Amino acid sequence: RPPARPAEHQHCRHNPLRDEWVLVSAHRVRRPWRGQLEQPPTEDVPRWDPANPLCPGATRANGEVLPGTPTPAPRPLPCVPPRCDPNFFPLLQVNPHYEGTFVFPNDFPALQPDSPAPGDSDHPLFQAAAARGVCKVMCFHPWSDLTLPLMSLAEIRAVIDAWAELAAELGASYPWVQIFENKGEMMGCSNPHPHCQVWASSFLPNEARLEERTQRQYRERHSVPMLLEYAEQEARRKERLVVENEDWLVVVPYWATWPFQTLLLPRRHVLRLQDLRDSERDSLASIMQRLLIKYDNLFQVSFPYSMGWHGAPTGPHLQEDCRHWQLHAHYYPPLLRSATVRKFMVGYEMLAQAQRDLTPEQAAERLRSLPEVHYKQRRR
Amino acid sequence: RPPARPAEHQHCRHNPLRDEWVLVSAHRVRRPWRGQLEQPPTEDVPRWDPANPLCPGATRANGEVLPGTPTPAPRPLPCVPPRCDPNFFPLLQVNPHYEGTFVFPNDFPALQPDSPAPGDSDHPLFQAAAARGVCKVMCFHPWSDLTLPLMSLAEIRAVIDAWAELAAELGASYPWVQIFENKGEMMGCSNPHPHCQVWASSFLPNEARLEERTQRQYRERHSVPMLLEYAEQEARRKERLVVENEDWLVVVPYWATWPFQTLLLPRRHVLRLQDLRDSERDSLASIMQRLLIKYDNLFQVSFPYSMGWHGAPTGPHLQEDCRHWQLHAHYYPPLLRSATVRKFMVGYEMLAQAQRDLTPEQAAERLRSLPEVHYKQRRR
Ligand SMILES: O=P(O)(O)O[C@H]1O[C@H](CO)[C@@H](O)[C@H](O)[C@H]1O
Ligand SMILES: O=P(O)(O)O[C@H]1O[C@H](CO)[C@@H](O)[C@H](O)[C@H]1O
Repeated sequence: RPPARPAEHQHCRHNPLRDEWVLVSAHRVRRPWRGQLEQPPTEDVPRWDPANPLCPGATRANGEVLPGTPTPAPRPLPCVPPRCDPNFFPLLQVNPHYEGTFVFPNDFPALQPDSPAPGDSDHPLFQAAAARGVCKVMCFHPWSDLTLPLMSLAEIRAVIDAWAELAAELGASYPWVQIFENKGEMMGCSNPHPHCQVWASSFLPNEARLEERTQRQYRERHSVPMLLEYAEQEARRKERLVVENEDWLVVVPYWATWPFQTLLLPRRHVLRLQDLRDSERDSLASIMQRLLIKYDNLFQVSFPYSMGWHGAPTGPHLQEDCRHWQLHAHYYPPLLRSATVRKFMVGYEMLAQAQRDLTPEQAAERLRSLPEVHYKQRRR
Repeated sequence: RPPARPAEHQHCRHNPLRDEWVLVSAHRVRRPWRGQLEQPPTEDVPRWDPANPLCPGATRANGEVLPGTPTPAPRPLPCVPPRCDPNFFPLLQVNPHYEGTFVFPNDFPALQPDSPAPGDSDHPLFQAAAARGVCKVMCFHPWSDLTLPLMSLAEIRAVIDAWAELAAELGASYPWVQIFENKGEMMGCSNPHPHCQVWASSFLPNEARLEERTQRQYRERHSVPMLLEYAEQEARRKERLVVENEDWLVVVPYWATWPFQTLLLPRRHVLRLQDLRDSERDSLASIMQRLLIKYDNLFQVSFPYSMGWHGAPTGPHLQEDCRHWQLHAHYYPPLLRSATVRKFMVGYEMLAQAQRDLTPEQAAERLRSLPEVHYKQRRR
């Protein structure tokens, strides 16, 4: 038998953070694609649109006081926002003319602070638990026609500071604060204005519980935080590195499931976003910009993804030993071959196991080789 | 505080099969949707198309002998297939003029029988394992313009027999045989011809390992198979029942994550598809037809989903005590509000925890209330 070559011979790889496996069948990328083609994102988003509820000065519908109206008709809005008298316009809220980031409550929150707890379970197969929390939306910038990779370093730095502030503020009481960005319509994003969401919950969500368990076990066994060790290994091995600087590195993880999935890791042992030093926030802005420009350059399109931050749990856990945790961000982008051909995680993936069509090393190599100047900003 | 009402007050529910939670925030269904709209499926699929590699008499490209040609140009094909002389046409394979179900090897298999094992791991964070297997495609019917809900009971019964046969044949040596159907372009299906896939592997995939563990633990603790007990409970409680007959029931499980997700369960303790009795196969054809007609009727569209069968593991596990297992099928359909508005499992769901916008009881009630005659077959 010839020796195994990962790019030719299918094999499974272990994801130690989720304690599960991915099937890597790189020879499969050759198959022709006759399935669904994605719509590339619209290119002509207006910079300011008073009908867009995320824009400065625009009027939002407050979902909670609009019962029974599933799709409110777009209201004609004055270009200059009316003064918001809550007694006169109880259904409307007006955004300030914000100039940097802007945080406001999600008008249709999946988590609310005061939901009553469900009754006791009468059977082990029917178990419910209380869920309380808060959902916020954060606009990255006043302009609708920008995305993070097109923003300046100072503007990205402002986003990082706003993240850290919210993580600390909501983390004072809530055990988990999930910061995440859905970018692109393909990722369920329903508004082109650059923004992310922050959902804080009274419980540790599944992914948090999973990473809590695997990281705790790893540290118990190996006396070092899993992702600190992992970053050191990848910095040395290099084949999965995409970009790095003095404080951070981005890799296509050895166990990546999405074609161009990446993991953003600090080199220092850092528990939470709010613990980042001033210089680390600057270098984070820089490495995010470099990664996101490469992403956009890959298929010359505003690259869709869902991303989010994971760090040590908060609230009551602030008092606990969380040294097994290491701060990190996951990027999960769906595109596989072009701006219009995505990877579908469907039948086999949902029922059995994730499967990928190129090796993580091949993905890293492609990302690494891309220019760090955005294709829209190149001088001609 | 008022008592909790599940349709109004968000809460978490436990999925005992996957040992994880889902956030149920039913009040969220009120929010307006301004995001991506899906393309409804094409209605004018030709019944027979010689250029469609799944049709009877059509010529397939055998992917394995077409290296380096990512998207072979469609070849002009004679309407009567050429005699297949493998010496003369090494790249082509011709389907027989099949009249019922038709099984053939996947031309671009993610699993092949003889891949070499990866070398030994040099670090606990970099672990690979051998993956061997077989991928097959099964056409349900010679016509391309049919789907399961539009097929006769005898035709669906033939599909069930072919499933059971493949499960037994591949299960003789492989530990896991995953039968799954991706229906609709939205679910990554790349060919409109009614078909499913069967991937047999030398390893237990993640989902199988998870259900193995949870079902084993449940039986150890409660002395009864989890899903046998669950079916009995749901048959009695009724609020999540969609359809039932003497041998089977379909429920929107208490822990459903997809909006109209269902679980198809036998009433008898059955380990594997191949163990189904003659009469149980007939009643399975009937309940599948009833469920799938309701699915199509929900939004008057050929309802997309990924579905698949889970049963006790096979190969070497045939010799083991698998009484904790119960055969079942999962249906995972993405549509939420209409033929064009789906639920996106993205940011929060990928990074934290699945979230749903209506209660399982509401979903079951809607499905239950739909007619059992297909909207395309109603007499006018
Ligand atoms: O083989 P198909 O149907 O073309 O491919 C589809 O199902 C496979 C198995 O779930 C997935 O890996 C692919 O991403 C999907 O497009
Ligand atoms: O709130 P949005 O961006 O409109 O909604 C999007 O993100 C949410 C959180 O991941 C998901 O639950 C929704 O399905 C998705 O469409």
